[in-house]
Amino acid sequence: MAEIGELRDRMDELTLRMVELLKDRMDVSRQIGDLKISSGRGVSDEAREASLRRKVVGMCRGIGLDESVAKRLLNHLINESIKVQSEGRPTHLSAFMRAKQMEYGGRRIIHMGVGEPDFMPPGMVRDALSEAFDRGFVRYGQPGGMPSFRKAISEHASKKFGAPVQPDQVIVTPGGRFSVYAAFHTLLDAGDEAIVIEPAWPAYRECAMSAGVKIKTIRTSLKDGWEPSVGEVRDAMTPDTRMIILNYPNNPTGKVLQAGTLDGIMEAAAAGGMYVLSDEIYSEYAPAEWKSILEYDYNNSIVVQSFSKSHAMTGFRIGYAVSSKEVVSRMSKLASLCLTSVAEPIQYAAMKALGEDTSGNADAVRERLDVLAGKAAEMGLEFAKPDGAMYLFARIPGVDSAFLVQEALKDGLLLAPGTGFGDYGDFVRISACEDKKTLIEGMYILQNVVDRIK
Amino acid sequence: MAEIGELRDRMDELTLRMVELLKDRMDVSRQIGDLKISSGRGVSDEAREASLRRKVVGMCRGIGLDESVAKRLLNHLINESIKVQSEGRPTHLSAFMRAKQMEYGGRRIIHMGVGEPDFMPPGMVRDALSEAFDRGFVRYGQPGGMPSFRKAISEHASKKFGAPVQPDQVIVTPGGRFSVYAAFHTLLDAGDEAIVIEPAWPAYRECAMSAGVKIKTIRTSLKDGWEPSVGEVRDAMTPDTRMIILNYPNNPTGKVLQAGTLDGIMEAAAAGGMYVLSDEIYSEYAPAEWKSILEYDYNNSIVVQSFSKSHAMTGFRIGYAVSSKEVVSRMSKLASLCLTSVAEPIQYAAMKALGEDTSGNADAVRERLDVLAGKAAEMGLEFAKPDGAMYLFARIPGVDSAFLVQEALKDGLLLAPGTGFGDYGDFVRISACEDKKTLIEGMYILQNVVDRIK
Repeated sequence: MAEIGELRDRMDELTLRMVELLKDRMDVSRQIGDLKISSGRGVSDEAREASLRRKVVGMCRGIGLDESVAKRLLNHLINESIKVQSEGRPTHLSAFMRAKQMEYGGRRIIHMGVGEPDFMPPGMVRDALSEAFDRGFVRYGQPGGMPSFRKAISEHASKKFGAPVQPDQVIVTPGGRFSVYAAFHTLLDAGDEAIVIEPAWPAYRECAMSAGVKIKTIRTSLKDGWEPSVGEVRDAMTPDTRMIILNYPNNPTGKVLQAGTLDGIMEAAAAGGMYVLSDEIYSEYAPAEWKSILEYDYNNSIVVQSFSKSHAMTGFRIGYAVSSKEVVSRMSKLASLCLTSVAEPIQYAAMKALGEDTSGNADAVRERLDVLAGKAAEMGLEFAKPDGAMYLFARIPGVDSAFLVQEALKDGLLLAPGTGFGDYGDFVRISACEDKKTLIEGMYILQNVVDRIK
Repeated sequence: MAEIGELRDRMDELTLRMVELLKDRMDVSRQIGDLKISSGRGVSDEAREASLRRKVVGMCRGIGLDESVAKRLLNHLINESIKVQSEGRPTHLSAFMRAKQMEYGGRRIIHMGVGEPDFMPPGMVRDALSEAFDRGFVRYGQPGGMPSFRKAISEHASKKFGAPVQPDQVIVTPGGRFSVYAAFHTLLDAGDEAIVIEPAWPAYRECAMSAGVKIKTIRTSLKDGWEPSVGEVRDAMTPDTRMIILNYPNNPTGKVLQAGTLDGIMEAAAAGGMYVLSDEIYSEYAPAEWKSILEYDYNNSIVVQSFSKSHAMTGFRIGYAVSSKEVVSRMSKLASLCLTSVAEPIQYAAMKALGEDTSGNADAVRERLDVLAGKAAEMGLEFAKPDGAMYLFARIPGVDSAFLVQEALKDGLLLAPGTGFGDYGDFVRISACEDKKTLIEGMYILQNVVDRIK
């Protein structure tokens, strides 16, 4: 095997040469970083990275190297620079975990911090759990979900949105969250970009970071009624933009996009062949004019759904995504690696709950939001009346919301700090997930805390 | 900013030069791969890789590059080669998914391919599911698991292994698989190495690859009764080795390590401050002399457990890991990102099942393994009698197991190909998860298929 020996020496030589170049590259990168700091520029420069990417792709054609292999190397190199970013920002989840600890210690907490309906799941879910056992739904299954459940979801979605959805376009996941995680980790590569419109659920950014994906943020404001402009979205797009995240009705603002804005965003995304991940878990808490992006019948769309809010089944950890067969198959591979499959008794119970009418919950939440809005107006908080969802996202001028949340928790009130949703340090998210009387009590505590710390 | 422009041109030039070298490297790699196939050698060559790694580290010192940066590049390059050479290898999971498809099409399949007990879960699990609903266990919870369940597990483990385990040393996960995934993704960095003793469950390698971790393989053989030597394990360790994976009773061989071997491995790991991840999900199917690594009271140990095999609860997707507080806290962060928490009704049901006596299952499996061993001996298969677990890992000389599995499935028998567990192309894993009569029927089909294709 003398020949293998020679080839291996050659391999070593090539590798060492690459390491030398890596050293040079790191040195140059550091110099650029220093110059950026002294000139007050940000860390990343999308246009430059895009041009390098184009050059690399061009070279691949010339030398006959698989483009995807080269891009992976490039992303690896870019990631080496991005790694620095890390943060300990308070989010609604960190506050929630503190509150849970206090509760285990016997303390009563008013939960206006987390989007967890206080309603019980539909009653038949109780019996469905035992029925699953009796019928033998206790086994390993397909990573994409139980065939009968995927079929039921596809029929449900087809009926609801008038767009034909096939069972193999559905993946069942433990919560909508895993769908988001899987989409970032299987559809995008390190170095790709995704657009998020803030304020936004922090999980999008967290999942992106864990996948080495760059988030480009479009920041909307209360002044503009939380409406982004199509122009802003277009401007944020580069050749590396591979995904746009939508979440309407929005968490935390309750906003629903104007039809023209959604049309414009979908058109821009389609022109670039981008994925559109639409997190629609508040669809049961939406006004009549809301529409699912499934209605656009766009091949690269990924609709994320969950039973957490619609069926008050947060603790069942069950959701799903609807997309193309190809996307579902890629996401299923990661599900298979992490989970094998989703718990069958839970899938069975959710399948039984799927067709239930839960509009009573939505009516109740709408009334509660009216109560919250009334109280917030009395207190002089600044907010836009939510179109849907289950939150009031309100500005308390002159208050640091992270501190406010900390102080309110001492008084037994859990709120979510605005910082968790983007650069909204004087906003707080108030969730309508307690009964009216308790909400009023919570707003009273909030008033006291604001008076105390202001 | 003319200077930045120049530096960036230099950066692009360096990157493109690296891509050129990558192309050359891929070409050489492919040539080596071809030579390996024609000479019947395996895909990876640890000694060669180690020598390259040493050269790279040596160069780093010379040129002043951070070693960890270079090692990450090296792992990236090595993984690119492994990806090319091991794509499409059949595993027990891919065969299982094909079998499930056939079953949905109405075909009867004898399941001797997957480690899925045919017993039902303990009966009380049925009522526990509905009881969870009645008692309000339907809510978001802590990412590490329900406090009461973590406490129950810690007491169970303390009692069973005589080592004190605290509740915050326990993380509940959706299956043992997620514990393995989380350990690789949170404790190790791309560029680190982990040691796996083959034959081994393929998930270890898959999780490592998805985390950019390099697996170093110790290959054990039937001839040596599947026993690795402590010397081999020591020799495989480098300064980059951060974790050793153990899995005894072993999947697929049923092997339990000799006490001296386990002592030696634990000692070597402790000397290097390495993590020891011990997948002990077959502990209820172990002989009396088996011991958990919890008994070593080693701070960097991670014991993975599951209700899948012990309580025949595969489809409930529930397991846990026991480790230090710090490790549990890191793994919980990923659980929080991917899942928020584990389904509460499932946690509740597993908590109720925890104390159940399931030794009847283990007795039944032991008897079945005797039956399988008897038949396999009659057929002239080569194997070591399993110490525990639920499999017979048998060599069928002169047979390509991937082809064998494919042919057997046509005849309604699901087996697991040896290739899924390492470089064991003429081995097949036969699982004792059907009743005796069905197992005998399966072995009869196997005999026919072997006669046909040999």
